Amino acid sequence: MDAAEFRRRGKEMVDYVADYLENIEKRQVYPDVEPGYLRSLIPEEAPEEAESYEDVFKDIERVIMPGVTHWHSPYFYAYFPTANSFPAMLADMLCGAIGCIGFSWGTASEATLIALLAARSKIVKLIQADHPDRSETHIISKLVAYSSDQAHSSVERAGLIGGLRMKKIPTDNKFSVRGDALQKVLEEDRATGLIPFFFCATLGTTPSCAFDCVTELGPICNAEKIWMHIDAAYAGSAFICPEFRPLLNGIEFADSFNFNPHKWLLVNFDCSAMWVKNRSDIIGAFKMEPLYLKHDHQESGNHSHWQIPLGRRFRSLKIWFVFRMYGLKGLQAYIRKHVGLAKEFESLVRADQRFEISADVVLGLVCFRLKGSNELNETLLKRINNARKIHLVPCQLAGKFVLRFAVCARTTESRHVQEAWCHISHLASELLQELPH
Amino acid sequence: MDAAEFRRRGKEMVDYVADYLENIEKRQVYPDVEPGYLRSLIPEEAPEEAESYEDVFKDIERVIMPGVTHWHSPYFYAYFPTANSFPAMLADMLCGAIGCIGFSWGTASEATLIALLAARSKIVKLIQADHPDRSETHIISKLVAYSSDQAHSSVERAGLIGGLRMKKIPTDNKFSVRGDALQKVLEEDRATGLIPFFFCATLGTTPSCAFDCVTELGPICNAEKIWMHIDAAYAGSAFICPEFRPLLNGIEFADSFNFNPHKWLLVNFDCSAMWVKNRSDIIGAFKMEPLYLKHDHQESGNHSHWQIPLGRRFRSLKIWFVFRMYGLKGLQAYIRKHVGLAKEFESLVRADQRFEISADVVLGLVCFRLKGSNELNETLLKRINNARKIHLVPCQLAGKFVLRFAVCARTTESRHVQEAWCHISHLASELLQELPH
Repeated sequence: MDAAEFRRRGKEMVDYVADYLENIEKRQVYPDVEPGYLRSLIPEEAPEEAESYEDVFKDIERVIMPGVTHWHSPYFYAYFPTANSFPAMLADMLCGAIGCIGFSWGTASEATLIALLAARSKIVKLIQADHPDRSETHIISKLVAYSSDQAHSSVERAGLIGGLRMKKIPTDNKFSVRGDALQKVLEEDRATGLIPFFFCATLGTTPSCAFDCVTELGPICNAEKIWMHIDAAYAGSAFICPEFRPLLNGIEFADSFNFNPHKWLLVNFDCSAMWVKNRSDIIGAFKMEPLYLKHDHQESGNHSHWQIPLGRRFRSLKIWFVFRMYGLKGLQAYIRKHVGLAKEFESLVRADQRFEISADVVLGLVCFRLKGSNELNETLLKRINNARKIHLVPCQLAGKFVLRFAVCARTTESRHVQEAWCHISHLASELLQELPH
Repeated sequence: MDAAEFRRRGKEMVDYVADYLENIEKRQVYPDVEPGYLRSLIPEEAPEEAESYEDVFKDIERVIMPGVTHWHSPYFYAYFPTANSFPAMLADMLCGAIGCIGFSWGTASEATLIALLAARSKIVKLIQADHPDRSETHIISKLVAYSSDQAHSSVERAGLIGGLRMKKIPTDNKFSVRGDALQKVLEEDRATGLIPFFFCATLGTTPSCAFDCVTELGPICNAEKIWMHIDAAYAGSAFICPEFRPLLNGIEFADSFNFNPHKWLLVNFDCSAMWVKNRSDIIGAFKMEPLYLKHDHQESGNHSHWQIPLGRRFRSLKIWFVFRMYGLKGLQAYIRKHVGLAKEFESLVRADQRFEISADVVLGLVCFRLKGSNELNETLLKRINNARKIHLVPCQLAGKFVLRFAVCARTTESRHVQEAWCHISHLASELLQELPH
C-alpha cells in the first residue's frame, strides 16, 4: 500500500469508524462467541502472498466484530469506562504517523508498582545510612506494605512482583480505610520487628467507588515515614469539577498520586498520569544509562526512569487534542452528565422495594442488588449478561454479591439508562416469579 | 466534535499523515530545540472554553513538529528501527474506535521482567518442595540471575525491579556469551552458596547485533535447571527469512522467547511478542482473580496474567493487517532490503582506509569508527548529530567508542545510504584536517 492508496483507504476507514460509533447501539454489546471462535475463521498460517485490502476490510465484520465487546456502547455498564473521543482518535492517527518512541519525554504508567519500588529503594537507603552493616536483602525481608482490603488487584500484584510483604487494612462500613485501622496494624507489625514503608490509599475503589480517609491516613504516614501513594484511577478525572474537589482533601500528604485519563477524561486507552512529590525518589530507584541512550539533556525532565518499559507512545498528543477541543467546561460537563445518569439510575433502584443500594453513590457507579441471597443475585446477573442487551460486572461488598452499574460510554443518554433499568427490572420479575413462595 | 465533523477532520488528517510521510525526508531529522521549548508556545493552563479544531490543527506545525525526532525519516540511523506502515496505521484507527481493553486475550510485553519473575517463582516452589522450612525471602536472597555484558539495560533493570542479584557474563571477541564463560561463573557462584536460576541470552544485542551462543548455553541451562530466556527484540523479525534461521539454532532449549514486531516487522509501536515453553510457569507467578474480573473462560487462553499492566490495546489487529497486506514474501523482501542496505554501507566504510568496522555485520546494523582515539570518534559523532542531516547513536565495544549505523526507516533507499556516507566522510575529512600532523 502506497501513500496514494492510504489516502483512499484511510478516508474509507474514517467513515467506517464514524459509522461504527454512530450506530454502536444497534450492535449486541457483549459477544456470543466462545474463546477459539477465531480459529475456524482464519487460516492456519500467515499468508505467503500479500492480500488485497478489500479482503482484509471485509473480514472486519466477518472475523473481528463477532468477538468484540463494545466498550463504547451505551449498553455497556461493566468495569469502569474506557475513554473514546473523536479528538483523541485524530491525535492517535497523528501519533501513529510520527511513530516516535517517547522515552525521553514520555508519560507514566504502572504507577503503583513504580511508587512501591521507589519507596522500597528509599527505605533501604535510609536504613543503610544509619546501619551500613545491614544488607539490602535482609532489610527487604522485613518490609511491609499496606493497602485497603478494597484496593484493586494490581496493588497486591505489585507486591508480588516486587517480592514484598503486603497486608490489607480492613475498611469501615463505607468501605473506607480510616486512620485508626492503619494505626493498629502498624503498631502490631512494628512490635514483631517488621518495617512498614508503603501505604496505597484508594480514592474511588473498583468495587464501590469508596474513598479512603486520606486526611486521617496522610498525617500518620508522614509521621511514620511511610510512603503514601494515592490510586485515583477512575475518580481522579472528577476532580476537575470544584464540587468533587473535597474528595481530594489530604492530597498534600501524598508522596505520589495517579489517575487514568483513559478512564473518564475522553482520552483513548492507554493514558495514565502520575505525580510524585520528590522526583529524585523515583529516578534514584531505576536509573540506567547505557551509552546508546545517553544524550545532552539527561537531567532536565527525562522521564525514561519513571516507568517499566523504556519506550512509550506519544500519548500526550491525545491529551492535548482532547483538552483543547473540549475545554475544561466541556470536560466538566461530561463528568457531571455521567454522575447525573448514575443518580438517575440510583433513584430508579431506590423506588423499587425489591432492590437495595449497597454503597453510597458518589460518582458514576451504582452498586445495587436484589434484597435476598447471593445466589439470587448471581442468577440475576447471569441472566442480564446472557440476554446480551446490556453488560454489567459484579463485586463483593461485606460478603454480599453485588451488581455494579457503571456509567461508561460517551454516548450514554437518559433513555439508555431508563431502558437498562426496565430490562433489569423485567428480568428480576421473571426470576422472582420462578421462586417457590 | 460530532461524527459528521470527525468524518471531515479525519479525512484531512489522513491527507496530513500521507503528506507527512511522503515528504518526511525534507524535514530535519533531529530537532534543534532544547527541553522546555514548548513552555513558551503553549498556555500555562488548559483552556476553559473549547477551542476550534482549526486552532489545534495549526499548532501541529507550530508547536509539535519543531520538537519531533523523525524516526521514520530515511536520515534516521539511530537506536534500532521502530516500525511504521500504512496497514498498521489503518488498523490502529480501527483499534482506537473499538477502544476495548484487551485484558482477556491480550498480548505480551515486559517480557524479560515477566520471565525473570516467573523463574523466581518457579525456583522458590521447587526448593520449598524439598525444604518446606526455607522461607521465600531467604531463598530469594540467595538467587542469582545472569545475562551477557552486552545485554540491554532493561535486563539489568528487571533485576533491580525484582530485587534480585544479577551478574554479567563476559563475552568473547565477537561480543557473544559462550558456554564455558557461563559454566565458570556458575561453578564459582554455587561454591559460595548462591542459587543460579535465570539466564537471559540475547540474539542481536543492542550495541553490535551480536548473538549469544545458544547451542552451547542452552544445554548448560537445561542441565542446571536455569530458566533460559531469549531476548531477540530486534533480530527476531529477521527469522522469517530462511537464510537467517540458523541464527535461531538452540531455541529448543529456551524456556521463553521474545521479539518486537514493532522494531522491524512493519507493525507500529508498541507491539512485543512473547512465547513460553510452559505457560503454567507464567500464570502461576501472578494470578490474581478479583470478582470483578471473573468470567466464564478463565482457563482457556487467558493472557491477563502474562504481563504487568492489566489492560492492553488491541494490538493483534495491526499485526493482522500487516501480515495480510504484505504477505510473508513482502515482509521477507523488506528485511532483505534493509540487510542489503547495511551491507552496502559496510562496503563504503571498508573502502575508506581511515575507518574500521568494529563488529560483524549480520543484519541491518553497521558498527564503525575512525581509526584513532575515542575522543576523535566522539567528536565526529557530535558533528554528525549537530549537522542535523542524519541521526546516529554510539555504543561502547571492548572499551572503544563506536558509531552505530542502523538501517531504520521503511523509506530508506540506496541513495539515502550513499548520501549519508558522503556526509559522514566529508565531516571526517574536515575533522582530520584540523588535527595537528
